Amino acid sequence: MREGLSVAEAQRLILEATAPLGAETLAAGEALGRVLAEPVVATRTLPPEDNSAMDGYAVRAADVAGAPVHLPVAFEIPAGGVAPRALRPGEAARILTGAPMPEGADAVVRQEDAERRGERVRVDVAVPAGESVRPAGEDVRAGETIFAAGVRLAPAHLGMLASLGRTIVSVHQCPRVALLSGGDELVEPDASVAGGRIVSSNSYALAAQCREVGAEPRYLGIARDDPADIERRLRTGLGCDVLVSSAGVSVGDRDHVRPVLEKLGCRLHFWGVHMKPGYPFVFGSFEGRGGPLVFGLPGNPVSAMVTFEQFVRPALLRLAGHQAVWRPRITATLGETLTKKAGRMHFVRVRLEREGPRIVARTAGNQSSGALRSMTEAQGLLLFPAEATRIAEGQTAQVQVLDLAVLAPASSGV
Amino acid sequence: MREGLSVAEAQRLILEATAPLGAETLAAGEALGRVLAEPVVATRTLPPEDNSAMDGYAVRAADVAGAPVHLPVAFEIPAGGVAPRALRPGEAARILTGAPMPEGADAVVRQEDAERRGERVRVDVAVPAGESVRPAGEDVRAGETIFAAGVRLAPAHLGMLASLGRTIVSVHQCPRVALLSGGDELVEPDASVAGGRIVSSNSYALAAQCREVGAEPRYLGIARDDPADIERRLRTGLGCDVLVSSAGVSVGDRDHVRPVLEKLGCRLHFWGVHMKPGYPFVFGSFEGRGGPLVFGLPGNPVSAMVTFEQFVRPALLRLAGHQAVWRPRITATLGETLTKKAGRMHFVRVRLEREGPRIVARTAGNQSSGALRSMTEAQGLLLFPAEATRIAEGQTAQVQVLDLAVLAPASSGV
Repeated sequence: MREGLSVAEAQRLILEATAPLGAETLAAGEALGRVLAEPVVATRTLPPEDNSAMDGYAVRAADVAGAPVHLPVAFEIPAGGVAPRALRPGEAARILTGAPMPEGADAVVRQEDAERRGERVRVDVAVPAGESVRPAGEDVRAGETIFAAGVRLAPAHLGMLASLGRTIVSVHQCPRVALLSGGDELVEPDASVAGGRIVSSNSYALAAQCREVGAEPRYLGIARDDPADIERRLRTGLGCDVLVSSAGVSVGDRDHVRPVLEKLGCRLHFWGVHMKPGYPFVFGSFEGRGGPLVFGLPGNPVSAMVTFEQFVRPALLRLAGHQAVWRPRITATLGETLTKKAGRMHFVRVRLEREGPRIVARTAGNQSSGALRSMTEAQGLLLFPAEATRIAEGQTAQVQVLDLAVLAPASSGV
Repeated sequence: MREGLSVAEAQRLILEATAPLGAETLAAGEALGRVLAEPVVATRTLPPEDNSAMDGYAVRAADVAGAPVHLPVAFEIPAGGVAPRALRPGEAARILTGAPMPEGADAVVRQEDAERRGERVRVDVAVPAGESVRPAGEDVRAGETIFAAGVRLAPAHLGMLASLGRTIVSVHQCPRVALLSGGDELVEPDASVAGGRIVSSNSYALAAQCREVGAEPRYLGIARDDPADIERRLRTGLGCDVLVSSAGVSVGDRDHVRPVLEKLGCRLHFWGVHMKPGYPFVFGSFEGRGGPLVFGLPGNPVSAMVTFEQFVRPALLRLAGHQAVWRPRITATLGETLTKKAGRMHFVRVRLEREGPRIVARTAGNQSSGALRSMTEAQGLLLFPAEATRIAEGQTAQVQVLDLAVLAPASSGV
């Protein structure tokens, strides 16, 4: 097993081992945010026929060239109906928006440009052929591939699927993620924390990080510092697509998870990433044996969340079929000087504020890997490169944006 | 009723009429993305006691000032346990990460810097007082307001709530949105579209737009062009927080929704917004009568989606308690020249591509208000101001970002 990779190497190895999950069939209305596993071919032409873009009168353009003209209103085309016959030269037909054009007509005069008088209409303006007509197939032609495989389904896609009469779609499955906590000191949030016990909060933060990207967390509970208990719990997670253990994968006296994983057939690919927080991170897989991808995260709350962000989140997005797997990233100006030792990339919890044209980053309080509070107050993770030792106030750095509110301006911009 | 507002005026009037919904009590694990209706006050100190940040040996710093030194290992503090007694001068105690410091100790020597020999340990380095100790209350002190009302709950917040033993939270309710379609020509997606019928696709796109912001859509079905049917359906939506009608609120022969709304007691505040697509938009409310906010959208698919974006979406976010109600907005460089007549603000469907340091916007095909396909291919809506008539290739414009993938770079940036 390799040890001590750069963050970039670790990400590359993880994504190389990660391929989109298989397809499942879903009601289109349930597929928001999912990724198409197959292309969608239109079985309908949209609009199916030439139709009116306005409420008004269907005419032959040639008949109104000398406007104002008076024409008999031969019939009316109701919404959701069709013309009873073709329009003859010199006739007009009352037509509503969306109604199919009668045969023989080639333009629509808007009702604002005409005046109805009993059985006749006075057309006040000449219109060219095609005026206010939406031609058949303007939007989609039957047989066209309207969406490629790999497209993420947004609201407009669901509207288009409905228009095409597609009520069922084939999408990549959602990743199921087994979450294990471990440690004799850990208790659930509703238990007493007297006598050195602490709440197993990681599972709750990590479950939410899974849900944010549409993955389904499954909580395996808290394993005691006992290989038998760890093995029993891990086995119940082997049917998932991903296994995340948020403690016990390091090198301490109590780090029992790693040997249990190896006993179960997991191949550990690497251990240790040159980053802070989060060095003691492990990645493994069951390679061709149908088991889950395995992510061993450090136990400190911020280390667990930051390593999830850098390694698990992109893998979950890739599993779900997404092509875009990285957080939005911006260039921010430092509002204070940062220093560190060379060797590890630091992920600095920062607040982000717009100040004129710039976005200014300042540390969000205590950067200890146990200080979860600053993680709740951070809008981004500033990338302080491994070999850098100083970024001065006023210089710029890249920031992964965790909270998009900073990109959502105070006004709509209209 | 006022007619013909600017987009900005319309947004202002809508948000002035919109206040956050009341509170509901939820399991914290179900509250991801919700907004706190009450502040959260910490009832615990975190960490509750001074504890070790490392696996190693608890000592008095004074005793290791002359390192290397040999100290007896007086006892071990297990994970999830407490020291059996205070540490006496000249003693060390074996301690694991997270375990509470024994009384009398003021520093931790990392195990890498010590060597255990039976009942004794050789400490190789001097450490200052406080070394590798996380002091009690470093992160949170009992009695502090840890989250203000109005905070959106992200994964780190759920982790912190778990750490604090808070399993229940008070959050603003999700807006419930009644969606009505209307028109004799409309059918559901699984029905035949022969003879001039078209699918009522708007409800499907709008329901997804609701879900994107955490609102709960409730579909009232397709009303016929018949005031009695419209009234019967609208009445079933009056218990919702928002009512969205996606047709029949304009001035055509068939626009029956407006009189029915007024009959039911809705006050219509304005009609018509100087925008394209989307002029025939109506906003109303039941003012003090407990009824929903009412949004009458134009029937064309793109007009319905774009007016939802500009008017309904920010209102839904405000109702749910969010402070950030606008889409991320970027400055993009035009990849082609756009022209239009003065008078209406155009929302141009654009593709967005990174080209070096710039994001370049190009129109996403047919800009007809019925051409939903270009809406599926757009990553943003470019704001072409009402009085502008031309934006030349190479000039910049503001773009509301619909698809964040364009902000998600091809690499993680590490």
